[in-house]
Amino acid sequence: MALIVAKFGGTSVADIERIENAANKVAIEVEAGNKVVVVVSAMSGVTNTLVDYCSQISPLYDAREYDSVVSSGEQITSGLMAMALQKRGIDARSWLGWQIPIRTDNVHGRARIKSIDTDELHKRLNNSEVAVVPGFQGVTELGRISTLGRGGSDTSAVALAAALCADRCDIYTDVSGVSTADPRIVPLAKKINKISYEEMLELASLGSKVLQTRSVEMGAKNAVPIQVLSSFDDEVGSAMAGTLVTTEDKIMEQEIVSGIAHNRDEAKITVVGVQDVPGIAAKLFGVLASAAVNVDMIVQNISADGLTDMTFTVPRTELDLAVKTLNDGVDLQYKEIIVNDKMAKISVVGIGMKSHAGVANTMFKTLADKNINIYVISTSEIKISILIDDDYTELAVRSLHAAYGLDKE
Amino acid sequence: MALIVAKFGGTSVADIERIENAANKVAIEVEAGNKVVVVVSAMSGVTNTLVDYCSQISPLYDAREYDSVVSSGEQITSGLMAMALQKRGIDARSWLGWQIPIRTDNVHGRARIKSIDTDELHKRLNNSEVAVVPGFQGVTELGRISTLGRGGSDTSAVALAAALCADRCDIYTDVSGVSTADPRIVPLAKKINKISYEEMLELASLGSKVLQTRSVEMGAKNAVPIQVLSSFDDEVGSAMAGTLVTTEDKIMEQEIVSGIAHNRDEAKITVVGVQDVPGIAAKLFGVLASAAVNVDMIVQNISADGLTDMTFTVPRTELDLAVKTLNDGVDLQYKEIIVNDKMAKISVVGIGMKSHAGVANTMFKTLADKNINIYVISTSEIKISILIDDDYTELAVRSLHAAYGLDKE
Repeated sequence: MALIVAKFGGTSVADIERIENAANKVAIEVEAGNKVVVVVSAMSGVTNTLVDYCSQISPLYDAREYDSVVSSGEQITSGLMAMALQKRGIDARSWLGWQIPIRTDNVHGRARIKSIDTDELHKRLNNSEVAVVPGFQGVTELGRISTLGRGGSDTSAVALAAALCADRCDIYTDVSGVSTADPRIVPLAKKINKISYEEMLELASLGSKVLQTRSVEMGAKNAVPIQVLSSFDDEVGSAMAGTLVTTEDKIMEQEIVSGIAHNRDEAKITVVGVQDVPGIAAKLFGVLASAAVNVDMIVQNISADGLTDMTFTVPRTELDLAVKTLNDGVDLQYKEIIVNDKMAKISVVGIGMKSHAGVANTMFKTLADKNINIYVISTSEIKISILIDDDYTELAVRSLHAAYGLDKE
Repeated sequence: MALIVAKFGGTSVADIERIENAANKVAIEVEAGNKVVVVVSAMSGVTNTLVDYCSQISPLYDAREYDSVVSSGEQITSGLMAMALQKRGIDARSWLGWQIPIRTDNVHGRARIKSIDTDELHKRLNNSEVAVVPGFQGVTELGRISTLGRGGSDTSAVALAAALCADRCDIYTDVSGVSTADPRIVPLAKKINKISYEEMLELASLGSKVLQTRSVEMGAKNAVPIQVLSSFDDEVGSAMAGTLVTTEDKIMEQEIVSGIAHNRDEAKITVVGVQDVPGIAAKLFGVLASAAVNVDMIVQNISADGLTDMTFTVPRTELDLAVKTLNDGVDLQYKEIIVNDKMAKISVVGIGMKSHAGVANTMFKTLADKNINIYVISTSEIKISILIDDDYTELAVRSLHAAYGLDKE
């Protein structure tokens, strides 16, 4: 008998038929004698509609009212899920954020969970009652509804699992787990059975949309085993289904490289001929930070004649804002700005890198063999990222996938 | 300076444009120096969609979960309305049922309001803050969301007006007030400027859908002046716009007849040859009541040979259930059942009837002149209702409207 938090994403509760299907999965866990807390997202599309209503009234809407409006999407699903479970003879009830309560700070629109009252939930779970909790929402100390930011239902689920000391947090989504690469690009990509929190964090932040980054951080901090699995497959959470995100030491057969991530949403900016003096980077990137431009990879050229070039990447959608900010930048001197908005970032991620030499070299050699030019390199303990022309994305990902021995047998 | 509760129905907040339009009306009241509480319905269609979701999962859904699901419709509108008011420079916030709180009993799906905490609302109103309250919802003493039944937002508005001792409760709807008859049938029908609670109750229960019956009862009990007006006309609540529902003594020029109501949704049942013994009516209608059949008008024939006929009306949708119930009725003896499902009820309503003779006679004479046969007659202090063949509905309503001098000059 285990205590399980099972979270169903928007596509898994997109309509009544899918809610019924999700309820069937919960019923299997209940029949197996487990205590279950179900966390639900809004039916897919609902949150977008609600956000759109708010934006139509005012782009500068009150985040407190926004939270009250958009949180209703999950409120609807939680009631429907409770009904679907009751129909299966399961004692179930919905618990809204303010009813539990899930207390958050007052930062509406992207609140952080501060505490969760679990006494009543534990009592109900011990009485074989299933708790259905709308994800994404909490309540502030002022008694107003708060939301946790887009994708926040993952965070709700992991936070509940941590607070309840659950044995597992199952995240049901529309893919059957985390893959060694995007299967649309690499047909030979295979599902990863186990992955560490650190690797998952790198993959998540690199554009793999399976889990919200904050939920992985929270899982790591509280050592909550997170099982990612598909609500459309004929499986429920178990060690063999989907991908288990867990601590490094729980992963027996460590691959040197766990996966190849890519992100085509990159633009490169080179600021040519800036004064190579102390503080210039702080000034340049300070200006961009003030304008809320997200700068990612950065390289600085070797200096010549007291001048240097700064190259960095930004999300493609923020390119215009970045360039405008640099043009308007007071006392920021440079010769010219060169931009390229057709770049891709390719990353090799693996916890085994820590103890293996030659991982970077394999990457550079593989790309050189295919005549793929590398513009920027950035590394961390468990990741190497490079920037290339977007046109070569598929070729690069497939070649690296093969080079690191990840192709399916 | 007055304290006004302004309620906007579903068609008045059907989309963002209409919410903005409603916000403009509130802004006019605020500029005039009034304190305003806004009560909103769900955007039209939303409640039906949510009810449909619940029914799809199970016709026997848990009313507690149903309340949590369907109340979200009004929650959405209240946040959007608060944003729309803020955009107009008005200090506004939404107050959900559990935040005020509006306490109700535990009868989910058709809860009754027990109390409303007004201290905080009064404080905010005195600070020129506009409170936006989702209609239809409250919270039980167990801390669960309750709803007041369909059309419950009218009741929320009147209850708030009563609790806050408001000067007026404005009900914005899609018609410009209460008419002397349905304008689609009587082109010469005119808007009633003032009407008593009692008359409004009769009109409401007779199928005039402008106000929920319970809201009128509550208005009468607490002497809340209710102003019915159109959110599409270029007017805000004032003595000259729409229809004012108020106490009898506030109505100066009393018409003998205020309006002609009709209801085409009637079926007539005659049970022929029942034993004319004491208790037979109690037995017959007791059986129907147990089956939740709503019996309206009743007449009993003169007895002959110890037998009599019972004639009564039921809503057309309940005819089959009524007949089946009578057929199955244990120890209920009769010769036969005759049904007619093409009947209409026509009612003449007016508080002046109390002190005027001849009102009924005018009705009978008018219908006789047009060769319209009357099947059943039922009277109250301020109303005479008759049952006729549905085919004659338009002719009867128009003729009576003229006969009582209600035609527009």
